[in-house]
Amino acid sequence: MKIDNKFFMKLAIDEAWKYQFLTYPNPAVGCVVVKGNSEILSIEAHKEAGMPHAEVNALKQAFLKYHPNDVIKTLSDSFEIHDYLIRNHNGFFNDCTIFVTLEPCNHIGKTPSCANLIKHLNPKKVVIAHEDINKEAKGGQKTLEEASIVCELGCMKKEAYELLYPFLKWNSSSFVFYKMAQTLNGTVDGGKISSNQTLAYVHTLRDRIDLMVIGGNTVRTDRPTLDARYVVGRAPEVMIYSKNKIFDNQIPLFKVPNRKVFISDDLFKILDYKFVMIEGAYTLLEKLNEKIDYLVLLISPKIRNGLNAINQIDLDFKIVHENYIGKEKIVYLKRK
Amino acid sequence: MKIDNKFFMKLAIDEAWKYQFLTYPNPAVGCVVVKGNSEILSIEAHKEAGMPHAEVNALKQAFLKYHPNDVIKTLSDSFEIHDYLIRNHNGFFNDCTIFVTLEPCNHIGKTPSCANLIKHLNPKKVVIAHEDINKEAKGGQKTLEEASIVCELGCMKKEAYELLYPFLKWNSSSFVFYKMAQTLNGTVDGGKISSNQTLAYVHTLRDRIDLMVIGGNTVRTDRPTLDARYVVGRAPEVMIYSKNKIFDNQIPLFKVPNRKVFISDDLFKILDYKFVMIEGAYTLLEKLNEKIDYLVLLISPKIRNGLNAINQIDLDFKIVHENYIGKEKIVYLKRK
Repeated sequence: MKIDNKFFMKLAIDEAWKYQFLTYPNPAVGCVVVKGNSEILSIEAHKEAGMPHAEVNALKQAFLKYHPNDVIKTLSDSFEIHDYLIRNHNGFFNDCTIFVTLEPCNHIGKTPSCANLIKHLNPKKVVIAHEDINKEAKGGQKTLEEASIVCELGCMKKEAYELLYPFLKWNSSSFVFYKMAQTLNGTVDGGKISSNQTLAYVHTLRDRIDLMVIGGNTVRTDRPTLDARYVVGRAPEVMIYSKNKIFDNQIPLFKVPNRKVFISDDLFKILDYKFVMIEGAYTLLEKLNEKIDYLVLLISPKIRNGLNAINQIDLDFKIVHENYIGKEKIVYLKRK
Repeated sequence: MKIDNKFFMKLAIDEAWKYQFLTYPNPAVGCVVVKGNSEILSIEAHKEAGMPHAEVNALKQAFLKYHPNDVIKTLSDSFEIHDYLIRNHNGFFNDCTIFVTLEPCNHIGKTPSCANLIKHLNPKKVVIAHEDINKEAKGGQKTLEEASIVCELGCMKKEAYELLYPFLKWNSSSFVFYKMAQTLNGTVDGGKISSNQTLAYVHTLRDRIDLMVIGGNTVRTDRPTLDARYVVGRAPEVMIYSKNKIFDNQIPLFKVPNRKVFISDDLFKILDYKFVMIEGAYTLLEKLNEKIDYLVLLISPKIRNGLNAINQIDLDFKIVHENYIGKEKIVYLKRK
């Protein structure tokens, strides 16, 4: 296997994918710091909006690799870490290359500018997979180059684009994904499919999204709660897709405090929201076909006798990423 | 993400998996060479029986990283690489750690002893995931330790055991895997499922196995050839599982020169062979249930209207590994 810039960028991309969706409304970003030719000091990602950017996490960990008991260990606030590194780096990063999946931000928002931080640390090189398209944040590469730091743009750009895609989509209009839990052979019924760890992940997603869509029949049959209680999270707004507007108001989902539930058969309402998850309503896939950006499959490694998830439509996908949630799989598929 | 011994061993394990089954009758083995604290010099694997072991490939590539135009570049024979490195290493590996998924071999077979080579190169440390259980090859760690080289055994042993499992199984009795191509939603019919790249991989597998098993109905319906023509490989012996012994002898599989085909309904015959692939005969899964070590799923990322692969039995699996073949997936599942 070749150990080149692509190898390091791939580590950054894979790390970022672990937090895909969870950084909303920010993009998922990963960063790797390499000292000399190929000494990996850190592999980090942006984990949640308001928390440090990927570069800040990676630079902090890289510094700690050589200064394991340094006071920076105790810092978690972005402004504090920036300030500390700028005052104490002492040339440590001069022989380092920074690999980052997205152009370092150039503006001060909830966190300070990464381009400014990197400029002060003066690394050997910054390798950027994808340029920033955000009007406010872009221009990081220019800032670095004006400070005479060598930048290289476009390493694994295609893969970085796939990582960035949900962010681009929710920024420009809406990002809609269809979440489905199934067995290896595609059955969706026959009792509880997913593990508790996977269910907790789904609840984390619910905490992040703006709107959850579910079919009326599922609500009538399953009588769900549709909150984020496993992770003590925020319950999302719910749209029940149904022509028949009459539901038993004892169904638990209507009783969750401080959240809106509405019943509608107008699918265009989805597009009033930025980040939408469709859950549990398999018949909706055909109807929503054109509006769905991703299919997110949670696959449990078992074969079960039962009904096939979907078998009335033919759809082609590209696997953009996949990962494990404990012993189960999560696969991110993009419509072709 | 922590960059520790486990991180490096995982790189070695993943590299080895790329050649799983293809090294038969040898085990799949991976090796990573790290200079100093965490400078990765090479990530390599054993690729085919008779070709250099993982350690030899990794040590050669590591040496080349610092001596890119060295004559070792032109060497591919194990004896020559061993000999060259022993005479020309010049202390290069003294500050290196070698991560290897299986204890370095201690005997001279088709290739020379890796333990002997490493002993001469005198690295800082050798980290071994799993001990060798092969009577002839084992004892590598002892050889190294007698030469005062620090060894650490057991890093990611569980994962290395999964990697080694097919080898352990075909060494002690038979390793039998059930290969299946399906869509995302588990359909198996509806025209050609796999890409040409995946088909070429299947033909490579056919070249390596001792016996291929197929159901009589599949033979009668599909009239297959069951050779390894896409990779100009050896056609495997074929057992047609069928009570009815009468077949049209014009079916192409009977016309492949230099290979044995037999028709039987005695499944115990499978165990006369060391490395067996069952292909295409889905009804056999229920009958063979207890004899199957792995289910190898080739998954094409599309949803199709069609018949579900298997829906008369309930089976639980553990995902032991997975990878891409081009844009499709290969998943290795072990019976629970």
